[in-house]
Amino acid sequence: MAIPPPAAVGDPVEAIDTPALVLDMPAFERNLDALDAAFESARAGRDDGAAPLALRPHAKSHKCPDIARIQLARGAIGVCCQKGAEAEVFVEAGIGDVLITNELVGQAKAERVARLARRARVGVCVDHRLQVEQLGRAAHEAGTVVELLIELDVGQQRCGVADAEAAVALARIIATQPALRLRGLQAYHGSAQHLRAAASRREAIATATARARAARDALLGAGFACDEICGAGTGTFVEEAAGGVYTELQPGSYVFMDLDYRRNLSAPADPDLRQALFVLCSVISRAHGGGARAILDAGLKAFAVDSGAPEPLAPGWRTDRLSDEHCVLRPAEDAPAEAPALEVGARMLMVPGHCDPTVNLHDWICAVRHGRVEAVWPVAARGALG
Amino acid sequence: MAIPPPAAVGDPVEAIDTPALVLDMPAFERNLDALDAAFESARAGRDDGAAPLALRPHAKSHKCPDIARIQLARGAIGVCCQKGAEAEVFVEAGIGDVLITNELVGQAKAERVARLARRARVGVCVDHRLQVEQLGRAAHEAGTVVELLIELDVGQQRCGVADAEAAVALARIIATQPALRLRGLQAYHGSAQHLRAAASRREAIATATARARAARDALLGAGFACDEICGAGTGTFVEEAAGGVYTELQPGSYVFMDLDYRRNLSAPADPDLRQALFVLCSVISRAHGGGARAILDAGLKAFAVDSGAPEPLAPGWRTDRLSDEHCVLRPAEDAPAEAPALEVGARMLMVPGHCDPTVNLHDWICAVRHGRVEAVWPVAARGALG
Repeated sequence: MAIPPPAAVGDPVEAIDTPALVLDMPAFERNLDALDAAFESARAGRDDGAAPLALRPHAKSHKCPDIARIQLARGAIGVCCQKGAEAEVFVEAGIGDVLITNELVGQAKAERVARLARRARVGVCVDHRLQVEQLGRAAHEAGTVVELLIELDVGQQRCGVADAEAAVALARIIATQPALRLRGLQAYHGSAQHLRAAASRREAIATATARARAARDALLGAGFACDEICGAGTGTFVEEAAGGVYTELQPGSYVFMDLDYRRNLSAPADPDLRQALFVLCSVISRAHGGGARAILDAGLKAFAVDSGAPEPLAPGWRTDRLSDEHCVLRPAEDAPAEAPALEVGARMLMVPGHCDPTVNLHDWICAVRHGRVEAVWPVAARGALG
Repeated sequence: MAIPPPAAVGDPVEAIDTPALVLDMPAFERNLDALDAAFESARAGRDDGAAPLALRPHAKSHKCPDIARIQLARGAIGVCCQKGAEAEVFVEAGIGDVLITNELVGQAKAERVARLARRARVGVCVDHRLQVEQLGRAAHEAGTVVELLIELDVGQQRCGVADAEAAVALARIIATQPALRLRGLQAYHGSAQHLRAAASRREAIATATARARAARDALLGAGFACDEICGAGTGTFVEEAAGGVYTELQPGSYVFMDLDYRRNLSAPADPDLRQALFVLCSVISRAHGGGARAILDAGLKAFAVDSGAPEPLAPGWRTDRLSDEHCVLRPAEDAPAEAPALEVGARMLMVPGHCDPTVNLHDWICAVRHGRVEAVWPVAARGALG
């Protein structure tokens, strides 16, 4: 039994069934414009000798082919996914160039990706011999070519080979597999996205860029291809662009923003991104015993709280706590006189703490403009974990 | 595009595509037995004058009609849901008696519940005049009877009327609506479930029971019906049963258990519940730069972390951190010699920090016995937020 959409196109915002993921279309489009402008500015500022630069937004944030198509129409060369099952959803929706920025392990997963390469250009990351062997066998049997990036650990200490030497060693193994083609390096520094000071982010990405350059030079020196150096996110992509080494940038959250990214302190070259994603909630109870509170109809099953609780957009209220299906608001200490009263039946837009896993809790995005629902997009890759 | 199941019935556990929600069937059945035994023991121990006692497990934990049917076959009188959309899924699956243990606001939601009452016995909680008026109008128009519980705040400070006087005032409003019928009180103390010391839980439930008794007596004294006093959860139901006032118990998590509930210190009468729910993960990377680590293919989109990170079942490893699609394990300081090496491609069962919102991230439950998949159940009410 599929989850029905919370609204129909043309509905007034007041008719959206709550809780619902709501996208403020003017803010969303402003974010797309701001990202494109920052990207163009960074590209124009690169030295003559720098690598060409392309934009490949990360679809793990929105999981929504409708948004991917908007990004492609603006010049993105394809999308990134984080899972094979996610990539299948985007290829099924007609996206022709998908990069899985993650390692896949298991022969069944390798076979699914190899089959997917019949219908689209598909890239995958590797950092270990087993992944290469499984993908090589699967691509050979499927009669396809799967393209690979060697993931390099550039500071995140998560996946990735440790250094240039290890990258060359893995490239030698890739070269033994005729159905695989090495494109270059994945050099993403995820934790750097959330360093608060611009100088800290700059320093982390300078180190990442130096490591990527060293690995690239080692691969080229050993006779391997290294056409692509891929990475970057919403918090740092201006730095990766400026370094002259990266060829593809992978920001994702910029379309939405969240409380965590808003805690970053901007540098002058950073785009001015606005909050575009909300969860629209209703006040279902307005109890007074134990102090005034308004209880919303959305909790841990509608908000990811790994980066902190969601906060109300309207002034005068603060989030006290969440449980599975409730969020308890309390009056803020500095509540202004015009703060909404939040009687039972009132509605509140909540700003998520972390956009990506919050989107993954919802089946639909209500795209809203001028108080009306302009589109209702399926979060088609929600729950695509495999 | 629906999410395909991660395994087929009869598959060996090794063939389950990861990450996947796995239910250890012997542990699950042992939990059902333990709950039933504790419930029967509590029922037998009640005074002659105590109210009759029934079990109505909460389906918000499993969101799975297959599990609900197992509970009903063991004598449960129906299920609880937390949302109207959830109730629709269970009624659609053939469950004939559903109680929504939560307030619903909005005429559209009221109309859906009123229509649902054509197909099943449906109860809803109220704590405000607006909810009563909306449900009364909707039930009248649908030609159905919607049954109500007045929610009483018994210590959680979330939803619910504040005291007996407010309960009587709301009962007067309910009595003006011919299509509504008052069943009694919902008196759930959610935060008491997670108090660590048994004495703290006992004290909290003693207070809750006293408040429920006072409200019941006030309703009866004012000439209103109060046949049912409902509440309780996995952490405290033995206490609600012992108090002699509650008539329906609503535990949910007992079927699965999680790290948070395991932190509770048991009292002698508590059932001995075992961990039955896991997320099966694969090691996708085994990097060494910056210290040994094993990276799993599941992160914040496969685990709810509001009650802490998941932990590996096997000894020798501990959870270091999670990101959207990864969980980083590090060797535990006290790793025993027999700890698994966790090479790339190895698998690990992870114990969720909080079962309910973790289940809500998955579309399927793989029920496993003796190393084989015995059933693959849809989490049919996953994402039923409305």
